[in-house]
Amino acid sequence: MKIYILGAGSIGSLFGALLARAGNDVTLIGREEQVRAINENGLHVSGFEEFTVHPKASLYAPDEPPELLVLSTKSYSTKAALECARGCIGPGTWVLSIQNGLGNEEMALKVTPNVMGGITTNGAMLVEWGHVRWTGKGITVIGRYPTGSDPFVGKVAEIFNASGLETHVTENVNGWKWAKTIVNSVINGLGTVLEVKNGFLKDDPYLEAISVEIAREGCTVAQRLGIEFEIHPLELLWDTIERTRENYNSTLQDIRRGKRTEVDYIHGKIVEYASSVGLEAPRNELLWALIKAKEGQSR
Amino acid sequence: MKIYILGAGSIGSLFGALLARAGNDVTLIGREEQVRAINENGLHVSGFEEFTVHPKASLYAPDEPPELLVLSTKSYSTKAALECARGCIGPGTWVLSIQNGLGNEEMALKVTPNVMGGITTNGAMLVEWGHVRWTGKGITVIGRYPTGSDPFVGKVAEIFNASGLETHVTENVNGWKWAKTIVNSVINGLGTVLEVKNGFLKDDPYLEAISVEIAREGCTVAQRLGIEFEIHPLELLWDTIERTRENYNSTLQDIRRGKRTEVDYIHGKIVEYASSVGLEAPRNELLWALIKAKEGQSR
Repeated sequence: MKIYILGAGSIGSLFGALLARAGNDVTLIGREEQVRAINENGLHVSGFEEFTVHPKASLYAPDEPPELLVLSTKSYSTKAALECARGCIGPGTWVLSIQNGLGNEEMALKVTPNVMGGITTNGAMLVEWGHVRWTGKGITVIGRYPTGSDPFVGKVAEIFNASGLETHVTENVNGWKWAKTIVNSVINGLGTVLEVKNGFLKDDPYLEAISVEIAREGCTVAQRLGIEFEIHPLELLWDTIERTRENYNSTLQDIRRGKRTEVDYIHGKIVEYASSVGLEAPRNELLWALIKAKEGQSR
Repeated sequence: MKIYILGAGSIGSLFGALLARAGNDVTLIGREEQVRAINENGLHVSGFEEFTVHPKASLYAPDEPPELLVLSTKSYSTKAALECARGCIGPGTWVLSIQNGLGNEEMALKVTPNVMGGITTNGAMLVEWGHVRWTGKGITVIGRYPTGSDPFVGKVAEIFNASGLETHVTENVNGWKWAKTIVNSVINGLGTVLEVKNGFLKDDPYLEAISVEIAREGCTVAQRLGIEFEIHPLELLWDTIERTRENYNSTLQDIRRGKRTEVDYIHGKIVEYASSVGLEAPRNELLWALIKAKEGQSR
């Protein structure tokens, strides 16, 4: 399958490398340092598996349309990335977002009706340019966005599975997106404000109790929007914390590197959707402000 | 006036020193190190004024009842302190709490009907045992608790003013207690979680906006309880931040010293009172949990 990976950070590079190794026609579109490294030495994967592949890499999307365009930029770059790639999105191209947070698929829907959403619990870390570490093997769930089905979704899942990415198809991907965003609102919220590893949220009795309250707030908003969950966000929360107890969440990692965070697309979107249905989301709003203040201090 | 100061920490020592210098019969009741230092070398004040006095100091309350018993322990020690001092509280003794947070006067009311509440914006810091620095000159407001008046309140205000403590009498001291607690819920809450100086809350646009939301939450609870404010908590908030912009709040100072904080009597009490009138206080509840988690880490 002809696949463009738009955003060659950690998770985009991992997906790109695995899909290229399985024989797909993969082009990674990313920033200068990463593109140069891949073109000079290939893309190296370490961690859960170890191999090197030589996918194409480019600063810009090539002109001919791919069958699949995987969106894997940070959420705050989605709008600009879609504008840059707009020319290559043909009538047969499907766009799949595997990004964190809410709102990315909506932006893609402005460009094409062929949009898939996805969540992934795989962990990846860019060790250096051209070298990504697969830190945790997880699952990927994809589906037509916001809900429903299409034969092409099954085809993508087949290709992902064949490349080593355990992938499931759902007709309710928006439910998964919300569940994962609610999990991130708790883990990235509390973990960033307190600068602790994920496991601490379950070990401290005050944080365990308040985690439930924060998750409930997101659930109330989702329910008011008519979202149904395939998995209860609290179940996903405790499971995620257990599997990642020694990790620092991505928002905290961004702040420690002086980078912009994705909280506008996690807490910010929950607050925005809450307000759209006449609700408040005070816990998310407070965490959002605390992290924006920390972000401002670190940059 | 015969005065016992129950709790010889920074603010108790400052009040005790000033009242002793003005010729009152003052006994400071405190912990061993402070009592020994005062008995050996007197009590030294620096900062806004500089002098040394020689008040009495004791580990226990003397038997004869004083006219005024000033409660100046940390709020979490009030119950134990009142039990220790119970024997000296005579029918003519008035108890005045100048402590942070809510709930101290209620505990005193279980021992005697003669209870005054008070707030003070004076800043003090214990430099070493026997030496307190008057870091900021503020005002003190006292009144019969929860509301109303008594000639003795005016007498105490006169004596405080004569000793150099600018003091005002109010018939609505509970309104002042709530206003100050709401101010503390914002400053000690955000300032401790982010570990920043007070001024930062006004300099960062996200924190300035969320400060208003946190203060409003406390105001809603107070209004439901029928509390009326003599000064709007937001006005007191901006004024306090302006006057103390280079300071770290007391909760953060406690955490940095590995000590227990008073948040159970600030955020904890706001949450408890909210629940007593069927309201939620999610912002206070979240700040409370975050600070309890930090407290647990530091001890």
